[in-house]
Amino acid sequence: MKKIAIVGASGYSGEELVRLLLSHPHAELTAVTSRQYAGQTVAQVFPKFGSHSRARALRFSEPKPELLAKQAEVVFLALPHGVAAEFAVPLLQMGCHIIDLSADFRLRSAAVYKDFYAHDHPAPDLLARAVYGLPELYRAEIAKSTLIAAPGCYPTSVLLPVLPLLKARLIKSTGIIANSLSGVSGAGRKVEADYLFVECNESARPYAVPKHRHLSEIEQELSIAAGVPVTIQFTPHLIPINRGIITTLYLAPEQHFTDARGLEQLAGQVAACYQSTYGNEPFVRLLEGKALPDTKNVAGTNAIEIAWRLDPRTGRLVVMSSLDNLVKGASGQAVQSLNILCGFPETDGLM
Amino acid sequence: MKKIAIVGASGYSGEELVRLLLSHPHAELTAVTSRQYAGQTVAQVFPKFGSHSRARALRFSEPKPELLAKQAEVVFLALPHGVAAEFAVPLLQMGCHIIDLSADFRLRSAAVYKDFYAHDHPAPDLLARAVYGLPELYRAEIAKSTLIAAPGCYPTSVLLPVLPLLKARLIKSTGIIANSLSGVSGAGRKVEADYLFVECNESARPYAVPKHRHLSEIEQELSIAAGVPVTIQFTPHLIPINRGIITTLYLAPEQHFTDARGLEQLAGQVAACYQSTYGNEPFVRLLEGKALPDTKNVAGTNAIEIAWRLDPRTGRLVVMSSLDNLVKGASGQAVQSLNILCGFPETDGLM
Amino acid sequence: MKKIAIVGASGYSGEELVRLLLSHPHAELTAVTSRQYAGQTVAQVFPKFGSHSRARALRFSEPKPELLAKQAEVVFLALPHGVAAEFAVPLLQMGCHIIDLSADFRLRSAAVYKDFYAHDHPAPDLLARAVYGLPELYRAEIAKSTLIAAPGCYPTSVLLPVLPLLKARLIKSTGIIANSLSGVSGAGRKVEADYLFVECNESARPYAVPKHRHLSEIEQELSIAAGVPVTIQFTPHLIPINRGIITTLYLAPEQHFTDARGLEQLAGQVAACYQSTYGNEPFVRLLEGKALPDTKNVAGTNAIEIAWRLDPRTGRLVVMSSLDNLVKGASGQAVQSLNILCGFPETDGLM
Amino acid sequence: MKKIAIVGASGYSGEELVRLLLSHPHAELTAVTSRQYAGQTVAQVFPKFGSHSRARALRFSEPKPELLAKQAEVVFLALPHGVAAEFAVPLLQMGCHIIDLSADFRLRSAAVYKDFYAHDHPAPDLLARAVYGLPELYRAEIAKSTLIAAPGCYPTSVLLPVLPLLKARLIKSTGIIANSLSGVSGAGRKVEADYLFVECNESARPYAVPKHRHLSEIEQELSIAAGVPVTIQFTPHLIPINRGIITTLYLAPEQHFTDARGLEQLAGQVAACYQSTYGNEPFVRLLEGKALPDTKNVAGTNAIEIAWRLDPRTGRLVVMSSLDNLVKGASGQAVQSLNILCGFPETDGLM
Repeated sequence: MKKIAIVGASGYSGEELVRLLLSHPHAELTAVTSRQYAGQTVAQVFPKFGSHSRARALRFSEPKPELLAKQAEVVFLALPHGVAAEFAVPLLQMGCHIIDLSADFRLRSAAVYKDFYAHDHPAPDLLARAVYGLPELYRAEIAKSTLIAAPGCYPTSVLLPVLPLLKARLIKSTGIIANSLSGVSGAGRKVEADYLFVECNESARPYAVPKHRHLSEIEQELSIAAGVPVTIQFTPHLIPINRGIITTLYLAPEQHFTDARGLEQLAGQVAACYQSTYGNEPFVRLLEGKALPDTKNVAGTNAIEIAWRLDPRTGRLVVMSSLDNLVKGASGQAVQSLNILCGFPETDGLM
Repeated sequence: MKKIAIVGASGYSGEELVRLLLSHPHAELTAVTSRQYAGQTVAQVFPKFGSHSRARALRFSEPKPELLAKQAEVVFLALPHGVAAEFAVPLLQMGCHIIDLSADFRLRSAAVYKDFYAHDHPAPDLLARAVYGLPELYRAEIAKSTLIAAPGCYPTSVLLPVLPLLKARLIKSTGIIANSLSGVSGAGRKVEADYLFVECNESARPYAVPKHRHLSEIEQELSIAAGVPVTIQFTPHLIPINRGIITTLYLAPEQHFTDARGLEQLAGQVAACYQSTYGNEPFVRLLEGKALPDTKNVAGTNAIEIAWRLDPRTGRLVVMSSLDNLVKGASGQAVQSLNILCGFPETDGLM
Repeated sequence: MKKIAIVGASGYSGEELVRLLLSHPHAELTAVTSRQYAGQTVAQVFPKFGSHSRARALRFSEPKPELLAKQAEVVFLALPHGVAAEFAVPLLQMGCHIIDLSADFRLRSAAVYKDFYAHDHPAPDLLARAVYGLPELYRAEIAKSTLIAAPGCYPTSVLLPVLPLLKARLIKSTGIIANSLSGVSGAGRKVEADYLFVECNESARPYAVPKHRHLSEIEQELSIAAGVPVTIQFTPHLIPINRGIITTLYLAPEQHFTDARGLEQLAGQVAACYQSTYGNEPFVRLLEGKALPDTKNVAGTNAIEIAWRLDPRTGRLVVMSSLDNLVKGASGQAVQSLNILCGFPETDGLM
Repeated sequence: MKKIAIVGASGYSGEELVRLLLSHPHAELTAVTSRQYAGQTVAQVFPKFGSHSRARALRFSEPKPELLAKQAEVVFLALPHGVAAEFAVPLLQMGCHIIDLSADFRLRSAAVYKDFYAHDHPAPDLLARAVYGLPELYRAEIAKSTLIAAPGCYPTSVLLPVLPLLKARLIKSTGIIANSLSGVSGAGRKVEADYLFVECNESARPYAVPKHRHLSEIEQELSIAAGVPVTIQFTPHLIPINRGIITTLYLAPEQHFTDARGLEQLAGQVAACYQSTYGNEPFVRLLEGKALPDTKNVAGTNAIEIAWRLDPRTGRLVVMSSLDNLVKGASGQAVQSLNILCGFPETDGLM
């Protein structure tokens, strides 16, 4: 059993980590921290975990790095950006492995971080050491890293569908558009009027147009894959579901097709590209036939669904994905990295 | 008081027409038809209208053109495509004015109709006579028409934001992308498993990719405005709200801007274009400052909200709109046409 | 046109008053106050009212009694209990008519107020002067009052169904149970974690068991009607809808029925009782046949639906009601009182 | 591994059985039947199970008892009442163990069955052989039964809270009232207009008042516990959530309490009664302190939450419970019985 701590376990990502790790066959949750709930048991704060004896026994504590380093070998940070780095620095020094769910270690450039997060990076020296924790892309690197930066929810929904196409030069690196819909848990457990039930129910709305923070990591990874700088258009929308993201991607095929035969040929290449990349991935579900992604088919799971259509009328490739923003988009993917890091079967605790 | 009939009043659009016309100061609802509910009062079928004495008195009847022509001067058709034309033909012959909410008279070309609706047009001779009932665009034509084709919900959400920009040559007519989210009432009162509560709640999903029927009327009107054939990309999504559409449009400015000054200049042109087109329109709400469209701000009303952002990173113009698919997207817009047709103040019964 | 002010117009009840009064044929909204939004227009704070020119012109102001007394003849108070009385006192002295939506003037006894609201009543001398603003019960008193206390949402849903039965001695005054379900707007626009979308969606829960504050006014009015002190059981539940209350009442018929004939006789008495009491009431909808109350049939309207069943198995009378907590349960009922007070037709602005 | 078949696996209960059994450590799903989906894989019909290789391999088949008896040792029946018995008879004869989720074998009396289900019982001889599959009550009987009738969702939410109190003579057996709220999946995957998204969203409504079918099994078990015939009042309501039931029970303590000391004494007895009955039950969660049941805390789990309050104002005991109608209220409880039947740890596949 691996000893695990979660720092900042009272937000939605932290709560989801608790859920996954309570049932994980090789994980022992030894510490969960929360300033707000210090002293209460996990079961008192989250009644839904009350059936787990561990949840009835384990109490939230104040977050103290020295103590955490003694309690756990791997520490998950489910903290706001800026704050996460403050904990990562001492914990790494004391020998812990860190899996960070914030944005603090996702970017390779401190300048880009400052551009998008509006403050200096709190620990720029660590950036080179961090691995972007997208297992399907960086499995080998994750296995030997001490600092894993779990990707954002939107970026995961964009990168997994787009990266293989870009690497295979099947699509142009210019003109990419990502249109995303997210459930309200994506905003975190923020007690703000915008996220009240009455304000979200029967409401759908775009937000953060045109420069959402997640663009920084999306463009970083797309640029690496393309070998040239990539700038994309990205529009997130808030919709009244608890969990789930639908991302619809508008892509321009590198090869222009002008007739049914050209379309068929390209379709074969796209299918082959996805199949060779993801055919054996346990959490990537390539939809077939008429099936299209639906958030209800991934809610609560670590799966991402991908479907695509070539449009003979416009010449465009439309790719659609769905995932659970709290699982494959956050905590599930982080546990997937834990499994890789520790040499556990990658699906342990995630099926 | 104008005598009004509604044929097919048991669907969501029909029900919404009933709601609006029961409170309309110049409309007298003289007949509502429904094969399913014939014999029952409006209040029995729709308990929510029970406070209106007219709803307690008026009974649904079988749809019989001869009778309807005697009962009403203006007949609204809230029927499936194909069926609507069957009623329009005799009713027009008997001198009624028709406001049709189906797709039967929206297209100018019977060939395009067949391409998108998969059957021959049932009354091609009438196509030239019909007016596309988008008041902000065809007000004068509506005023003197006998056959008004109320636009579809998605088309209204696309056309009102795009047409002025296209006419003013501020955007290119190529590469237009419309990404739409719709509430479930947009599917009509179809008793199919896909629209059950449990299948829609906590679900978001694209559908009809890449060739939704509404493309036909959208492209027809964009092409007229642009003076050249326009083909667009359009992706509808179903989200768990009762009413409302959010459309996010990705547009390429005709004038490429390369610096802040170019952006500011173009922004001024876009603002001026919208202001001159819609500044006095009672139902078009141009959002200012940081405001973005939200379905909850238009639900139950005949308003459409429009906001836009120029993205200096991509050079694109992102325009967003929201409307209630059953009001501005269907029955409210139809009543707006009724007001124009009859010379009533255009906002009567709609505020 | 009557000059009207709303103090505390930024909560849900205040917002609903704004909605109703913007469309009221005899009301001129001359002032709306909100500390939080002072300086902004109504349309800026509530974009959905943007189609009303008055909403674009009128600005929120700081709440100052001296100024309000000059601006308005009737002042609606949509404030928390305790605070409302602070405004009522000076405004009454300066000659305004007050319609208060808080609990401050609903109770006749300052001692009961203290028992349920946990602080001394701020203006006990005014209690004798106030009228409980339930139009169906106190129409005559409302017409000549200067201080009207609009009833709570739950109390309206309980009192309208129960009072006639109690007055007619058809049910016992003991053993009454009211089980209520409320939409989340009933909690007001409180920015608390309990009312976040993710915490309310897919959630149903009882709360405030067994002593909710609304018991005080319910029992007061039931006791007056029964002529003896009445104590009831009341359990509110929070359910994920924006608006609406369903109340299910368990009542014991005074006359025990032992056979079908007894049941039929009692059923006739109950029907006659409701018919004679509410047959001409514009906002009370007595359901017939198999119809049962549904919040969606009253949402946005000032109607209350009432249905009932005698249970031959248990001998009990089960009565069910539905209303919109923000309309008949708050602001609509308050406007109904305004109409009575000013001599306007009682349905003005409410149909 | 135990070989398991599910007959009627396309409804919500059947789908939930599939979910639970795909992950069960000792169950091998060897057959799933559905007339509608015969020939398709489980993953095609339910994309959300696509990550399980078994779901991609296993195909729905036509339901044929002879074949099923060869394929499986235990057969779950997730069929409508009336139909279930038709399959149970031959399958039992061929030596299968049956766990039936319908109402066909829950009642001991064929006459009561006919009274509530409006047709003759299709296999009355089997009634004496069946065990009512409420593990907390009939664990020993379940272990040696060949025909287990899994209880209904509402009955489970009523019986688990009430039975211990009744057996301990802490409450009267008369005057019991159960007020329940249910998510829409409780209606099954019925393609009827009443269960469309638009008809359920923003709607709350009572139904089946006053004689819901589940009364028959509730009263049967209460009567057995009380030793006298028990008749209760039961009112179900439909609310817009996918899963979950809240039941609020109004009970009369046997011992009337008149002061704080009497209340405290009774409270101690109630607490002790629940603790001794359920203290070691893995799926019964006795809430403490201020906690009250919430459907979101049990959704997707086999837990039932129970909380209670003594009301000094009315002398009543109010007990509240929450459970997931598809898990503890149906399929989860059925799997719990499977575990007991097969000698597996009772929580296997259910945590």
